[in-house]
Amino acid sequence: MTTNSTSTRVLLAARPHGWPTDENFRVETVDLPALADGEVRVVNEFCSVDPYMRGRMNDVKSYVAPFALDEPLTGGAVGHVVESRSDALAVGDAVTHQLGWRDVAQAGADQFRKVDEIPGVPLSAYLGILGLTGLTAWVGLQEIAALKEGDAVFVSGAAGAVGSAAGQIARLLGASRVVGSAGSSEKVERLTSRFGFDAAFDYKAAPVREQLPQAAPDGIDLYFDNVGGDHLEAALDVLNPDGRVALCGAISGYNETEPQRGPDNMVNIVKNSLRLRGFTLGAYMHHAPAFYAAMGPWLASGEVVHDETVVDARGDVGATVGAFLGLLRGENTGKMVVRTA
Amino acid sequence: MTTNSTSTRVLLAARPHGWPTDENFRVETVDLPALADGEVRVVNEFCSVDPYMRGRMNDVKSYVAPFALDEPLTGGAVGHVVESRSDALAVGDAVTHQLGWRDVAQAGADQFRKVDEIPGVPLSAYLGILGLTGLTAWVGLQEIAALKEGDAVFVSGAAGAVGSAAGQIARLLGASRVVGSAGSSEKVERLTSRFGFDAAFDYKAAPVREQLPQAAPDGIDLYFDNVGGDHLEAALDVLNPDGRVALCGAISGYNETEPQRGPDNMVNIVKNSLRLRGFTLGAYMHHAPAFYAAMGPWLASGEVVHDETVVDARGDVGATVGAFLGLLRGENTGKMVVRTA
Repeated sequence: MTTNSTSTRVLLAARPHGWPTDENFRVETVDLPALADGEVRVVNEFCSVDPYMRGRMNDVKSYVAPFALDEPLTGGAVGHVVESRSDALAVGDAVTHQLGWRDVAQAGADQFRKVDEIPGVPLSAYLGILGLTGLTAWVGLQEIAALKEGDAVFVSGAAGAVGSAAGQIARLLGASRVVGSAGSSEKVERLTSRFGFDAAFDYKAAPVREQLPQAAPDGIDLYFDNVGGDHLEAALDVLNPDGRVALCGAISGYNETEPQRGPDNMVNIVKNSLRLRGFTLGAYMHHAPAFYAAMGPWLASGEVVHDETVVDARGDVGATVGAFLGLLRGENTGKMVVRTA
Repeated sequence: MTTNSTSTRVLLAARPHGWPTDENFRVETVDLPALADGEVRVVNEFCSVDPYMRGRMNDVKSYVAPFALDEPLTGGAVGHVVESRSDALAVGDAVTHQLGWRDVAQAGADQFRKVDEIPGVPLSAYLGILGLTGLTAWVGLQEIAALKEGDAVFVSGAAGAVGSAAGQIARLLGASRVVGSAGSSEKVERLTSRFGFDAAFDYKAAPVREQLPQAAPDGIDLYFDNVGGDHLEAALDVLNPDGRVALCGAISGYNETEPQRGPDNMVNIVKNSLRLRGFTLGAYMHHAPAFYAAMGPWLASGEVVHDETVVDARGDVGATVGAFLGLLRGENTGKMVVRTA
């Protein structure tokens, strides 16, 4: 009798228009076939839910293909091999992969990457600070925005997984001042007390355009943009000459059905010789070795800390949907993960 | 008896609010003192009027200091030395300098740069294609937007001095397709017939967002932006992945008293990994030698052509004001210059 011979998974039942709801998703349980040669079966300990997934639910051309209707959703996940017909992976190996939104994954061994388990660091870290989340912050600061020692740095959405990593990495790489925004007074407090930001503000309490100049009285040299919209506009007001912007996401526009109004001060890009550069991580995976070499010791020493919001979906994979909707509403603190085993 | 012992010049009488009018300017004639040691006197053959001057008429911090009230305006000019008390310059030398908006200039010899007179090329070229105008196009394409062979290039305001230079330089440096916009059907016709653009459209005839995709059916890789506003928004729609934008000016907003609405599709910067970079020429003057080395032969061979609109202000320096207002209304074809001698 094979263990874990079924897989319970979430499918895209209908494309959302605007904010997604439960009706856009469906849960099904299927019997898994016996392993073919070269395949492994993995019990997922944690699955990742991420803002970019909302974009993949639309049927439009983007930097990643849209999710298919009536097919299982995919996304980052980490778990343990429970059965193997491959020499590359053994039962008990910890692996990361992209077959999330389900409790059990099965595929060729080349779909999985073996990782080390670090004492004291939960496996879920590979979905966040030790994974694409941390690497996104690293690449955005170093490669996209060319962080220099002494830069004054502003990070929006700074209590999020990427944002809190970006603020800490900026400080460790020599930023002179790190300012962050977040969407509640509790998150703002965490930015300074836990993540070492020099100043922070609640973007829901007053216009960003009023608060940012107070938090950055000498202007900023580098803006790590997770938000877009009013945050980018406010940043364009205070960026110093030769300032740089890494545009990482525009979460404020993800659920808008109408195009979002752009900054009314684009002329500052010319006046102050600013550089804006958008990026998605795919083209920059070659930075991963340098990132792991830096982040491993930082995590081990406690120089970098990270938050997770863990939603328990053990025995109820469908709870992944609620976690995703909560993420879009900003209910997470730090990286949002779903425990599936 | 010294010749040219008076200087007639234009002063800023009042700061314009929105579009400038004649009332913002005043003409005066002053007696020039005898030359001090090290000084020269220059009769200006041509004075330059340029869009950036409108910005300097506002009392706001920008990349150049504002013009002072009740002081003579300044700007590019080219002329001949008529009297010299400096070993650096002799009577008859052709020189470029920044003491424009007047018929006779007098200052220390270090304020003037001696230039060669090229047979068949009018001295006014040093105010345009052989001067900062051509250099702006060169720097924007090569340094700011990293032009690559095979790029599809879009230039807005392409019938202007910078725009027509940019289109021709892009073609000579290996662009696969060069598309331009201009503000009348006559200018559009000149773009293809005279300046060698592959396609062009009249931005006043229909929304740019409708016309640009038809003129660039395979998208664009590089956008040289002289306009901002609706042009930048349309370009963000069609820029291919890893596309680059050189933001050189935003003439569409110069006379607006309200902030200009920004592009509603900034999210494309993230989706397509775009780079936007603003610039003003000051930081890039070290490119001048390479530029002159390329542009000299191109002009001599006729591979690059240039247009001028010459306003005759001989005996009426005040006509410079009308030339400047006409420039802002788009009445020029190519570089707008004023003949003052």
